[in-house]
Amino acid sequence: MSELGELAVRMRRFAHEREWERFHTPKNLAMALAGEAGEVLAELQWLTPEESARVMDDEEAAGRLRGEVADVTLYLVRLADVLGIDLVAAAHAKLDESDRRYTVAEYRGSARKAPPLS
Amino acid sequence: MSELGELAVRMRRFAHEREWERFHTPKNLAMALAGEAGEVLAELQWLTPEESARVMDDEEAAGRLRGEVADVTLYLVRLADVLGIDLVAAAHAKLDESDRRYTVAEYRGSARKAPPLS
Amino acid sequence: MSELGELAVRMRRFAHEREWERFHTPKNLAMALAGEAGEVLAELQWLTPEESARVMDDEEAAGRLRGEVADVTLYLVRLADVLGIDLVAAAHAKLDESDRRYTVAEYRGSARKAPPLS
Amino acid sequence: MSELGELAVRMRRFAHEREWERFHTPKNLAMALAGEAGEVLAELQWLTPEESARVMDDEEAAGRLRGEVADVTLYLVRLADVLGIDLVAAAHAKLDESDRRYTVAEYRGSARKAPPLS
Repeated sequence: MSELGELAVRMRRFAHEREWERFHTPKNLAMALAGEAGEVLAELQWLTPEESARVMDDEEAAGRLRGEVADVTLYLVRLADVLGIDLVAAAHAKLDESDRRYTVAEYRGSARKAPPLS
Repeated sequence: MSELGELAVRMRRFAHEREWERFHTPKNLAMALAGEAGEVLAELQWLTPEESARVMDDEEAAGRLRGEVADVTLYLVRLADVLGIDLVAAAHAKLDESDRRYTVAEYRGSARKAPPLS
Repeated sequence: MSELGELAVRMRRFAHEREWERFHTPKNLAMALAGEAGEVLAELQWLTPEESARVMDDEEAAGRLRGEVADVTLYLVRLADVLGIDLVAAAHAKLDESDRRYTVAEYRGSARKAPPLS
Repeated sequence: MSELGELAVRMRRFAHEREWERFHTPKNLAMALAGEAGEVLAELQWLTPEESARVMDDEEAAGRLRGEVADVTLYLVRLADVLGIDLVAAAHAKLDESDRRYTVAEYRGSARKAPPLS
């Protein structure tokens, strides 16, 4: 089984053992996902871009950030499991699209604001 | 290489070819991550919990949701890559913690509001 | 002066006295705004819609929610002040648009998913 | 009536005329609020802090940002109305707390990361 598959199975069991499945509607999980993404923001909001690039040098900040990023991962994997979405396949499909849309020839070194990944 | 490792490598190359690395600070990627999580919310915000559980039955809504969830995945994987965080290891560490904190004995069937995953 | 104008002036002074203006770029304030909106989500994410409608009956939850909603207000007012946006005028302009776009004749009682305000 | 009170009344009527009140649970409105805060992020995510400080000089970007900030305002005012929260009073109460917590003597010119408003 893939590493994300294993994570999904572990969370499925976690929710099942506690009878928490009824809380895990797509709607609720999307809220939890966005809430945790907000926690990631909170860790970085007052830093300059340069400070943000060095944030993992600070052990305490690194630990907090690792925890918040983990929370986003957990809710994303659980949401995808509940919706029946294959995260990795969906991500590659999105990148295929971006490859076609943002051609290297046209976008390399471009000064214009560009949505870098999708 | 793991499936997330491959995705990270593909995005690293995607950004490199377009000279977009300077846009990909942790600060900017966290904003993009939260923005995409907001797009997931927008797909589900007016649905009842029950409707949200059936959202993938509607082909058009399913396609949009798959795309938004993919965008979250892409920015999460890219952010973790830039920060040097192993997403899967961090997620399992968080679940280990949750296993200790929310014991089955104490939380099963509990009516009290509980943070299901972390 | 209007009530929002007074709030903006108070925050301007608050930031000035602490020499925190350099932190208050539109970029940083937008992150803080979204982070606080995420805190509001966290208060409501495991509640059913019906429970959410009664959330203010619980004194403790009400206090937390009031605090989070206040934080969103503070960062929104500060962001608008820094950007030179008149919040109330901008909101009315958006509602004028919605009045034209979502006519009562066409949308009343409509079962279709609809973006209620804008 | 105050300017926010008028805005709340206008939105109450807007929702009532379209029979959209059932969509406006605190849960749904919190999702809409966070979704719109995500749209604000999207406008600023690839800008440097300096570029973000000049974003209103670009007429097109200014128009989009004004629209997104207006959407946040609308959902915030509507959420507060539905919850029975007085936004301005709650915001001043939060600032009273911040005044006590972040004293000028201790925080002025402080290099340490600080949550500027609340």
